[in-house]
Amino acid sequence: MSTAAFAAKAANAPLGPFAIERRELGPKDIRIEIEFCGVCHSDLHMVNNDWGFSQYPLVPGHEIVGTIAEVGSEVSGFAVGDKAAVGCLVDSCRHCAQCEAGNEQYCNAFTMTYGSATNDPGGVTYGGYSREIICDQEFVLSISGKLDPAGAAPLLCAGITTWSPLKHWKVGPGQTVGIVGLGGLGHMGVKFAHALGAHVVMITTSPEKGEDAKALGADEVLISKDDDAMAKNAGRFDFILNTIPVRHDLNPYVGLLKIDGVMCIVGAVEQLPEINSAPMVFGRRSIAGSLIGGLKETQEMLDFCAEHGITSDIEIIQMDEINQAYERMQKSDVKYRFVIDMSTLPG
Amino acid sequence: MSTAAFAAKAANAPLGPFAIERRELGPKDIRIEIEFCGVCHSDLHMVNNDWGFSQYPLVPGHEIVGTIAEVGSEVSGFAVGDKAAVGCLVDSCRHCAQCEAGNEQYCNAFTMTYGSATNDPGGVTYGGYSREIICDQEFVLSISGKLDPAGAAPLLCAGITTWSPLKHWKVGPGQTVGIVGLGGLGHMGVKFAHALGAHVVMITTSPEKGEDAKALGADEVLISKDDDAMAKNAGRFDFILNTIPVRHDLNPYVGLLKIDGVMCIVGAVEQLPEINSAPMVFGRRSIAGSLIGGLKETQEMLDFCAEHGITSDIEIIQMDEINQAYERMQKSDVKYRFVIDMSTLPG
Repeated sequence: MSTAAFAAKAANAPLGPFAIERRELGPKDIRIEIEFCGVCHSDLHMVNNDWGFSQYPLVPGHEIVGTIAEVGSEVSGFAVGDKAAVGCLVDSCRHCAQCEAGNEQYCNAFTMTYGSATNDPGGVTYGGYSREIICDQEFVLSISGKLDPAGAAPLLCAGITTWSPLKHWKVGPGQTVGIVGLGGLGHMGVKFAHALGAHVVMITTSPEKGEDAKALGADEVLISKDDDAMAKNAGRFDFILNTIPVRHDLNPYVGLLKIDGVMCIVGAVEQLPEINSAPMVFGRRSIAGSLIGGLKETQEMLDFCAEHGITSDIEIIQMDEINQAYERMQKSDVKYRFVIDMSTLPG
Repeated sequence: MSTAAFAAKAANAPLGPFAIERRELGPKDIRIEIEFCGVCHSDLHMVNNDWGFSQYPLVPGHEIVGTIAEVGSEVSGFAVGDKAAVGCLVDSCRHCAQCEAGNEQYCNAFTMTYGSATNDPGGVTYGGYSREIICDQEFVLSISGKLDPAGAAPLLCAGITTWSPLKHWKVGPGQTVGIVGLGGLGHMGVKFAHALGAHVVMITTSPEKGEDAKALGADEVLISKDDDAMAKNAGRFDFILNTIPVRHDLNPYVGLLKIDGVMCIVGAVEQLPEINSAPMVFGRRSIAGSLIGGLKETQEMLDFCAEHGITSDIEIIQMDEINQAYERMQKSDVKYRFVIDMSTLPG
């Protein structure tokens, strides 16, 4: 089945129109007409082959929302015309301990929505910068018609990436939670931590982001360059979600944690500067990481969002604006996520 | 009350005889005649003022076992003639959240057994390199007559420092646990993890330590310099107790953890080299620290040791051999803890 898409044909090349082949609909498959696709920073990393395993042509996109156009004979719980979503994963081994626990994101054999090998020799998955996607029902998510479909698209990656650790470390009422960094991930972290009942503190280098953070649900703003303010906040936080997307010094943030507090990294996946173990030893503090989320918890997040009216703050672009959007994203010039209106896809 | 002791009179000075004053016995106090005192690496750090807050004369020693010689009028649960012990702490604020949770080691106002300010102006606590100690009953531990008192002394610091994280992170049957480093802490970690029912792997740079580790209870030995062996063990460990006492690279060990695995640092309290966050993010792995333990869990550990016949492997020294013992300790030339026979204290 030939499907219109937008692809990068080589590393660092601009994206442009490209026709891909989608597989035939299997008995457990769902065909979704894509209406909106969020633009994740990892799309740009993959286009630029920053992680060394990109294959071209590459069709990015793993924040996919659309309408079900066709269902296979064995599909249950989904019907033609339903709103549906696909996130970062389209398959996993389905039988390891992690899959059985609903942690498909930690399966050794998961299939990413784009850029992963398929079962066909030489085959590769193509993402959401395309007209349609065919996906096994186990990896399709239901999404409420109550949610704006464009604003809901980033929930599939930015949303679940922040939701999963907040839930895993049981963030809730009575807790003081810090969100470090106010971008695509951070702004969702603020919204979720607030909706989960925590006292939310935006921790940022940029005083000018304070009012924005408060409008998103932060109760306070802590400027991380202000040494006095940082010292006053020492030992105050139950949990810190660190969304800074680049190499940075963790030490100032570890000192903000309470005894037994945890800081979870979801942005920077790289070599990080030297770390002083003293605050960890003297307060049983932890530094952890977390990766997207499993299917079950993604559905729970989407249901929570429908109930609480939570979506991402977005800027809608046309498909042919994607290359400019990448340039702006590199300068953090977006509040807080670009979402492609896929009706503008040519072809 | 004048009490014979051994003290360092200045930073880096050799220890020698020195008479200290112990306070009058209060209604809630217990006077213990000290029989054995373990020699902890922190004794040497304090003598050398490595942490910058030592006061001289300094009387080290916080692994104290002896016999109760006198009890105050309001003491209950202890009687003259009982075996008793004192560990790293002799007081805390007693009303903060940490004290109320039995985590006195994380109280902001704890009093260390030696080198801490007392309530008397200019007063400082003196440790277990002395004839007697007077301690509030809340900070005195009961110790079974079934345990060898010399071998039990190191339980008060080396023991609880390894026991507390093993219990906090719920190490038990069905788990694979790594102990990194085989010294005073590490050898207790092996014994405890084994007694708690875990499958224990000694992780060491030194192949010659393998047989010793197995004799202590390790099921396997993993040589951390063997890249192939390390690669084969990737993702295998539920929990790693890292007892390496000096600056070292954490990265090789983080990769050994399972999804959701935790490595806890109990040895190196300092600036540690750069760390790659990728294994943390891609497997929700954590790096944490832990400090000694609270009074309640120290008593639980001592009771567990009595039940399972666990003590430290020690080398008994006379009081006047302490300076040589420090020299040997700096070269890791001890299996695995020096303990001073306090009957050899002059005066």
